[in-house]
Amino acid sequence: MTSAPPAIAFTGSPLDRADHLRADPDALAGQMNWRARLLKLDGLTPGMDDGGALAWGTLADCDPDAELVFLGLMEGKPCFAPVPAEGAEGPAYAQPQVWQAINLLSEQDLATYGGARSLVDWHARHRFCARCGAATEIAKGGWQRDCPSCDAQHFPRTDPVTIMLVEHEGKLLLGRQPKFPPRTYSALAGFVEPGESIEEAVAREVKEEAGVSVRDVRYVASQPWPFPSQLMIGCHAHAVDPALTIDETELEDARWFTRVELEEARAAGSEGTETLVFPRSVAIAHHLVTWWLEHDS
Amino acid sequence: MTSAPPAIAFTGSPLDRADHLRADPDALAGQMNWRARLLKLDGLTPGMDDGGALAWGTLADCDPDAELVFLGLMEGKPCFAPVPAEGAEGPAYAQPQVWQAINLLSEQDLATYGGARSLVDWHARHRFCARCGAATEIAKGGWQRDCPSCDAQHFPRTDPVTIMLVEHEGKLLLGRQPKFPPRTYSALAGFVEPGESIEEAVAREVKEEAGVSVRDVRYVASQPWPFPSQLMIGCHAHAVDPALTIDETELEDARWFTRVELEEARAAGSEGTETLVFPRSVAIAHHLVTWWLEHDS
Ligand SMILES: [Zn+2]
Ligand SMILES: [Zn+2]
Repeated sequence: MTSAPPAIAFTGSPLDRADHLRADPDALAGQMNWRARLLKLDGLTPGMDDGGALAWGTLADCDPDAELVFLGLMEGKPCFAPVPAEGAEGPAYAQPQVWQAINLLSEQDLATYGGARSLVDWHARHRFCARCGAATEIAKGGWQRDCPSCDAQHFPRTDPVTIMLVEHEGKLLLGRQPKFPPRTYSALAGFVEPGESIEEAVAREVKEEAGVSVRDVRYVASQPWPFPSQLMIGCHAHAVDPALTIDETELEDARWFTRVELEEARAAGSEGTETLVFPRSVAIAHHLVTWWLEHDS
Repeated sequence: MTSAPPAIAFTGSPLDRADHLRADPDALAGQMNWRARLLKLDGLTPGMDDGGALAWGTLADCDPDAELVFLGLMEGKPCFAPVPAEGAEGPAYAQPQVWQAINLLSEQDLATYGGARSLVDWHARHRFCARCGAATEIAKGGWQRDCPSCDAQHFPRTDPVTIMLVEHEGKLLLGRQPKFPPRTYSALAGFVEPGESIEEAVAREVKEEAGVSVRDVRYVASQPWPFPSQLMIGCHAHAVDPALTIDETELEDARWFTRVELEEARAAGSEGTETLVFPRSVAIAHHLVTWWLEHDS
């Protein structure tokens, strides 16, 4: 029960984060040399080369005023990414160019892009000090921002989110939000709040969204999700009772799916069946349901 | 292997977060009545009643200018906490009054205090918009802050941290930071960064701090930690090789402990043995090592 599904999207970057270089300004400056690679970004959209790989340039390509984030070392070469003028606007699903790139990139490139995107987007949306309102300055190779006015230090943010398969008598509970494409259902999910464990967050979310009490919450797998920067924590739980009370401010529908319905939808690919489109492979929900279908539980 | 140790500190609050009330200003205003309870806080230090329980007052006790956070319902009564003028300053271990309270509070009170503390401290340190620098306003019962200038919405922050038992041939790797009390060792830990899964964060941290490669990372248990607001994600992993290369900027020492050393230190309580003080019970490290001692792995 400890084996996670392989190849969860946005994991497996070949970057060595080389964090010892971040805190050493001289060493970091020494990395900003002719060998350094600069991730090509148009805002937050990745540049692609003719082979469908992430495109990289040199620091000479960079606007001299741009803030640069040190991503780490790849094949010994220092890698940087530029902070865009503006952070992400609107939901990720409304950015067709980004999704086109995501569908083309290799697993490793996707992971490198996702981590870089979360970081530079955070900088673009956090140029001011939340403590005092003053303008902040990038520090430690982009792994920190410092406030010159009140001395506060600010760090890139990652928000933990629980996403859970809820099971009852061999069926799985999946729901759909109004923004989902037609017939698409996915695992319920929600942010972990201050003051709760993963297990408590899972139980609260399922109760809030579907009115279902759960027991035996267990962890399955995790995924970094770069829209803008979540840590998706995939879990499994058993429902105490299958009766549903759906929170219609969150979900348009939620229901119990049989193993056969799920297997048919998975086999039907992106078109789905008449009743269900399986979560797309880039989402951890795809891996969680696949894990459930392939294991006894 | 799915059973977490019981009674992890800061979990088990009896509060019903009643999140449907947060987004409904009229319903929320209706909760601010004579039945409402106000958590007594001196800054971030909890007030205690004569029985050693969290002290609660009424909204009449409250500074009329204070921002209030809606914690949820307890025994049907709405519960609020006041945002202090200043957020936490300095490390948590340097606040003896807070630690004294933590040692006295019941499990349920400790969980209620921890969640409330993280929330009100976040507000005190986030009165300005990180996007544009303008002053922000509390919203949704304290589960959001809104920027009237640029319309950005800001949410209370929770930082995921991995904390891991690394095992090799029946021994556990523990380390000590210079700030730890004498002879105290604990599990290695570090923040999950943008672009990595839990498993990748565990592997990176152990490599960075101790020079050890790991395999077979698995999740064990989690804990909310309110100094200021971490989600501690407890894991177990096997070391590929026991040779240590300690990052002395992070750790003063790290070494392999036998089962007998750990059992003796646990039995010796807060005084510890000549070589080891066991992690204190409020820390998830205490539960992780106890879990390891009590299970075959
Ligand atoms: Zn400041
Ligand atoms: Zn703003």
